[in-house]
Amino acid sequence: MSENQPQMPESSNQPMLGYSRNGARPWPSARPRVVIIGAGFGGINAARALANKDVDVLMIDRNNYHGFWPLLYQVATAGLEPESVAYPVRAIIRRFSNVSFMMAEVTRIDCAAKMVYTPTIALPYDYLIIAAGSANNYFGNDSLAEHTYGLKDLDDAERLRNHVLSNFEYAVSEQDPAIRQRLMTLVIVGGGPTGVELAGAFIELVRHVLVRDYPMLDISEARVVLVEASEHILAVFPEGLRRSGLRRLEKMGVEVRLKTMVANVDAQGVTFGDGSRLETGSVIWAAGVRGAHLGDSLGMKLARGGRVPVQPTLNLATNPDVFVIGDMAYLDTYKPGVPYPMIAPVAVQMAELAAHNILAKTRRRPLRSFHYFDKGNMATIGRRGAVMDAFGVRLSGFLAWMGWLLVHLMFLVGFRNRVIVLLNWAYSYFTYDRGVRLISGLKPESKQHEYR
Amino acid sequence: MSENQPQMPESSNQPMLGYSRNGARPWPSARPRVVIIGAGFGGINAARALANKDVDVLMIDRNNYHGFWPLLYQVATAGLEPESVAYPVRAIIRRFSNVSFMMAEVTRIDCAAKMVYTPTIALPYDYLIIAAGSANNYFGNDSLAEHTYGLKDLDDAERLRNHVLSNFEYAVSEQDPAIRQRLMTLVIVGGGPTGVELAGAFIELVRHVLVRDYPMLDISEARVVLVEASEHILAVFPEGLRRSGLRRLEKMGVEVRLKTMVANVDAQGVTFGDGSRLETGSVIWAAGVRGAHLGDSLGMKLARGGRVPVQPTLNLATNPDVFVIGDMAYLDTYKPGVPYPMIAPVAVQMAELAAHNILAKTRRRPLRSFHYFDKGNMATIGRRGAVMDAFGVRLSGFLAWMGWLLVHLMFLVGFRNRVIVLLNWAYSYFTYDRGVRLISGLKPESKQHEYR
Repeated sequence: MSENQPQMPESSNQPMLGYSRNGARPWPSARPRVVIIGAGFGGINAARALANKDVDVLMIDRNNYHGFWPLLYQVATAGLEPESVAYPVRAIIRRFSNVSFMMAEVTRIDCAAKMVYTPTIALPYDYLIIAAGSANNYFGNDSLAEHTYGLKDLDDAERLRNHVLSNFEYAVSEQDPAIRQRLMTLVIVGGGPTGVELAGAFIELVRHVLVRDYPMLDISEARVVLVEASEHILAVFPEGLRRSGLRRLEKMGVEVRLKTMVANVDAQGVTFGDGSRLETGSVIWAAGVRGAHLGDSLGMKLARGGRVPVQPTLNLATNPDVFVIGDMAYLDTYKPGVPYPMIAPVAVQMAELAAHNILAKTRRRPLRSFHYFDKGNMATIGRRGAVMDAFGVRLSGFLAWMGWLLVHLMFLVGFRNRVIVLLNWAYSYFTYDRGVRLISGLKPESKQHEYR
Repeated sequence: MSENQPQMPESSNQPMLGYSRNGARPWPSARPRVVIIGAGFGGINAARALANKDVDVLMIDRNNYHGFWPLLYQVATAGLEPESVAYPVRAIIRRFSNVSFMMAEVTRIDCAAKMVYTPTIALPYDYLIIAAGSANNYFGNDSLAEHTYGLKDLDDAERLRNHVLSNFEYAVSEQDPAIRQRLMTLVIVGGGPTGVELAGAFIELVRHVLVRDYPMLDISEARVVLVEASEHILAVFPEGLRRSGLRRLEKMGVEVRLKTMVANVDAQGVTFGDGSRLETGSVIWAAGVRGAHLGDSLGMKLARGGRVPVQPTLNLATNPDVFVIGDMAYLDTYKPGVPYPMIAPVAVQMAELAAHNILAKTRRRPLRSFHYFDKGNMATIGRRGAVMDAFGVRLSGFLAWMGWLLVHLMFLVGFRNRVIVLLNWAYSYFTYDRGVRLISGLKPESKQHEYR
């Protein structure tokens, strides 16, 4: 904490951090107050850019950790421990003397009063950075929200891991072959990088690990099906890489169904657009995201995908002290009608600009507009394959996988996490095993009797 | 699986593993069938002793992992990942061709019919090893069961970690100093090894890690209180080690209250036997265990602590094909009225004898009686202290801690877990930090508003 921050009163009824429960009392610092909502790539990098500058920063997130979500699919497929892709926010900001943190869910923003509300406290701000990320987009189809597994945070990943492993356990004592088949069938909806990475990791889990864990099961009954509505998977990649990605997935044993729409999902399976049906107990939704629902509370007309339209300077036209960055921001200056993709590099670069523009405002200097430096795209396909389209280089196969490994390890927060992740990978690579296939606390007690 | 095990029927309605849903159909092997209930130290070592012998073994546990519970307190205090103290059962038994596993909760045992029941299946046995471990003993005081945290499995440990860390988060925005004090006060009931290890690890978490994470909190308000009903902590150790353990704990900052009974616990604190009161939101129960509740279903008169009285050969007098081992077994041949302690070495040695005696029965040879080889006791006190009374050596301090570390790493299942644990310790030792202080999925959403 900076010297300008208030000390906790010893035994009085005074509010802490300069905040009172009704928000009436201002932060007792002469410096501008910046509130950042969200501790993802956007929030953390905005805090980093504002660190040790002449502002007071408060970061709010519903969790006490920053998640490195590009590796989340490895938690879901029992390749990494949940703890190795997440890092406590307080450990990250500890070295920033002017940044503090609060674990809370932001429920409402009042731009006119310049206040942010949580269930227990009201927080005034001078400048606001909204970086609350994204949520699953089910396009209004309630059956998808109810019966599919998402992959947005640690809890989702652990829930999915528990579910898939439990289904294999139940299959062992299941006598009805149709139900057994259903328990051993995984459907992934969406052929983007997330869907492809999940499909590759799941088929390897089944073919290399579970086959040894369950000698009493006929593992050829296990299926991993990747469903994609358009004509090709990996749409963000050039044609050659799309094709080599598809070939690799199919060679590994993934059934890829292109030009296939999902009409409905229930507890027993998927119904497709053409009326055909696939029996499965596990449907994973990787086909659509939208801006976080916090955007709805701004009282503005949102753009496509529930994203908040921002000016090129990343603030709102109506409230220029409010900046929206990352997955939540809608900005199409690069190509009208095509907003920047919802990926980490965009959030990081937007965070840096938002921080710069806030500092510029405090100094009454002109703001800069956003220009995206595109570093390219990569996606893994199984344990030693990947596609990579970056810095003018197009690669697939093992070399691309090495590149992917290097880049992701480099950006992973925290020395300790980096070592643990590397160790897990080395272990899994040399032993063809996975160490983390525990069915943990999130296992629903009653599910055992419900799967039929 | 051995060649005698049935293969999964391709597409018929036949039962798997020789089990039908109503239990009518016997296991289709000529070899004796041994069912082991529980995958703890007892169950795993019984399976190991029966591996590749002339029997078919089925192990049942409600979880799919073996937990290394001597390190569980480190999960609860954010020192280790949950995954590093647990190991998938199937990965352990994979190399035993005659041992299989089923994840299920055993609900009932019928010794007359020689059947074990789960919610979905009935399993016949020729020999049964019951090794279901222990449960918390609240001595009939419902307020303890409702308002204290236990430490019996991974879920308990993660729940406790989430609770303690969340309370510190809530303390940050809490303006009422009495409530803040309550949020930052931890009470541990029970001065045995578990209570002492928890108290030592928690005070270090507070004094070395949380103090840096929460510069806005006055960490001197945080208290760790260890409550013990008798006159001394660490009762299983000789007088000198008890005293040095107590001195060390107090020097670290733990408040130890001896000769103090807990009368009642509610959501706001503890009431002691003398009517005095301590306000706290976190009470941890480490003062009593009993045999697992499965023992109640045997229809026998249980001994003290809900344990099942066994013969010196570890089987039941009434049902000599049923063996009960470990925490669940009551045997006082060593000293009448004093049963063997509920610790891992007893379970391991009993497992080996039970396996030996089952094989002896199949060969119509005489059974052996249990003789305990006492390897001694150890307990850690913080990050580099311990007490150790083993092999005639009595040690305290750093050397005892090194001994403890060595012994526990040696017995930890699985190369990967050993490396991860060692790495976590090295990291925590050199940086005085803890890497795992995430508030994860088990965080109750509503608790945020309930803590007042």
